[in-house]
Amino acid sequence: MNEFELIARLTASLPTNAHVVAGAGDDCAVLDFGLPEKWFLFKTDAVVEGVHFTPDTPPEKIGRKALARGLSDIAAMAGTPVAAVVTLGLPENFDAGCVERIYTGLNALAQQFGIAVVGGETTAAPGGFFLSIALLGTVPRGGAIRRNGARAGDAIFVTGELGGSAAGKHLDFQPRLVEAQWLAKNFALHAMIDLSDGLAGDLPHILKASGVGAEILKSAVPISRAARLQAAHKPPFAAALTDGEDFELLFTLAAKDAVALHDAWKQRFPETKLSCIGKIVAGHGITIRDKSGTRPLEAHGYVHFAQPG
Amino acid sequence: MNEFELIARLTASLPTNAHVVAGAGDDCAVLDFGLPEKWFLFKTDAVVEGVHFTPDTPPEKIGRKALARGLSDIAAMAGTPVAAVVTLGLPENFDAGCVERIYTGLNALAQQFGIAVVGGETTAAPGGFFLSIALLGTVPRGGAIRRNGARAGDAIFVTGELGGSAAGKHLDFQPRLVEAQWLAKNFALHAMIDLSDGLAGDLPHILKASGVGAEILKSAVPISRAARLQAAHKPPFAAALTDGEDFELLFTLAAKDAVALHDAWKQRFPETKLSCIGKIVAGHGITIRDKSGTRPLEAHGYVHFAQPG
Repeated sequence: MNEFELIARLTASLPTNAHVVAGAGDDCAVLDFGLPEKWFLFKTDAVVEGVHFTPDTPPEKIGRKALARGLSDIAAMAGTPVAAVVTLGLPENFDAGCVERIYTGLNALAQQFGIAVVGGETTAAPGGFFLSIALLGTVPRGGAIRRNGARAGDAIFVTGELGGSAAGKHLDFQPRLVEAQWLAKNFALHAMIDLSDGLAGDLPHILKASGVGAEILKSAVPISRAARLQAAHKPPFAAALTDGEDFELLFTLAAKDAVALHDAWKQRFPETKLSCIGKIVAGHGITIRDKSGTRPLEAHGYVHFAQPG
Repeated sequence: MNEFELIARLTASLPTNAHVVAGAGDDCAVLDFGLPEKWFLFKTDAVVEGVHFTPDTPPEKIGRKALARGLSDIAAMAGTPVAAVVTLGLPENFDAGCVERIYTGLNALAQQFGIAVVGGETTAAPGGFFLSIALLGTVPRGGAIRRNGARAGDAIFVTGELGGSAAGKHLDFQPRLVEAQWLAKNFALHAMIDLSDGLAGDLPHILKASGVGAEILKSAVPISRAARLQAAHKPPFAAALTDGEDFELLFTLAAKDAVALHDAWKQRFPETKLSCIGKIVAGHGITIRDKSGTRPLEAHGYVHFAQPG
């Protein structure tokens, strides 16, 4: 049983109740508590030393990244984060100054988005540092953008540029909350996800949930400068497809809306790239089109344990 | 700077917003989203291998305990849990069957209380197993029982029996959700907390938050059979004061209500002990009274990193 089979089995057996609009398997859970205008979003995520940061990562950036990852998931549902609770697992020789610096980075990002940090638990963690953050947010009732709404004929868009995040962006990225809320308010998005495991790892989540396939135009995929600089180690297009932690938005909408979206985006977010990288098609899986024709994509995203949700 | 000074400094600097009724520093955060009859409770907690369980703890019990700890915090606010999200940190040689067994234990307890498990994230954790669970619950608007409401003259009550939890109860305890909801519905509780760090560790949280002291009658403190069986290693009364993970409720209410409470409790929960162990007094700190007189308590609760919230 591999990781994905395990997750599918576990997800199928989770208890549910009448509050659940969407449970495990999307970027956030969606809950209904009877508020006339709002649904709630609920999400947890963790960063672990040696996986998501190294012993020499500045503590401020560890705290910031731990929160930013969850915010990217709230963004992927077009939601607004409201409150966070934090669990810090500390090795025995913990340094109080280091903990304060973690919170300095975390709190600064929370303040930027008006998020209250309403609980800070610490626990001993003999095996090494971890930082788990749960987020509660809201989204207009009926307005959560799920993974399962893509339709054949949709245009596929991605914000920003892809690949090479490990060179620095994974610690400094801006969660696309403002952009996602603007998109959902102004356009009829069909499906959205944030790119944590690479385009080749995350687009399939939309495709499987929606029962469709995708054709990606190779020349349209926006490749980051960091990915180009590392061309000697990994072809830049492969990096754009498979590097993890881009934390950009990937979404689809009707092809007829694509031009209007492009024009409005340039007005509203002139400094952030928005690229139409292909289209949703009937069938399944990803096909890459370049000047020599089309071929199925066999590469996979950044594979580490997980990121199911 | 010790752990408690660090927590105080961190707590004072956490960002807040208009939704926050109570932030870090109580058993759960309390949030207001404008629902006419309800507030929300938000809490996160983690269990770590080598701290909260051992490599030979059955996985079902690890999952159960991780959820039960947070439920005990929801109980301490007299709330009702609604939804949980889970982060599992897995060492590299993880065993899929073990993960399934963790969820078996966790899901069974969730079902017992009607809780939806709406997200299950896994991440690599090279340093060792951890399991972090965030909980969302509700409480009647204005009805959250805080730590800061104890008044001089109040009677102090504790459910169940104290001490010796490490012999087994820490894996099998029933979170006192039903009892706490019944208490808050039928009596005017002034303050409540769950005992995770021992009576001597947790009663001071109520005393400090309320600006009062307490006098405990030694002979009234209910000592568990497990604590008595370990008398050769630790005096049973010391175990009842300082052993961690009892997960019983400790609460105060006006002394005039004490007899009625005792009678009603016996009717409603005939199999669970309820003990009046002393009274809230003006001043600060804990005094122990026995047949030889009174003395200040110097012992402290089970000290590990944490449990601020």
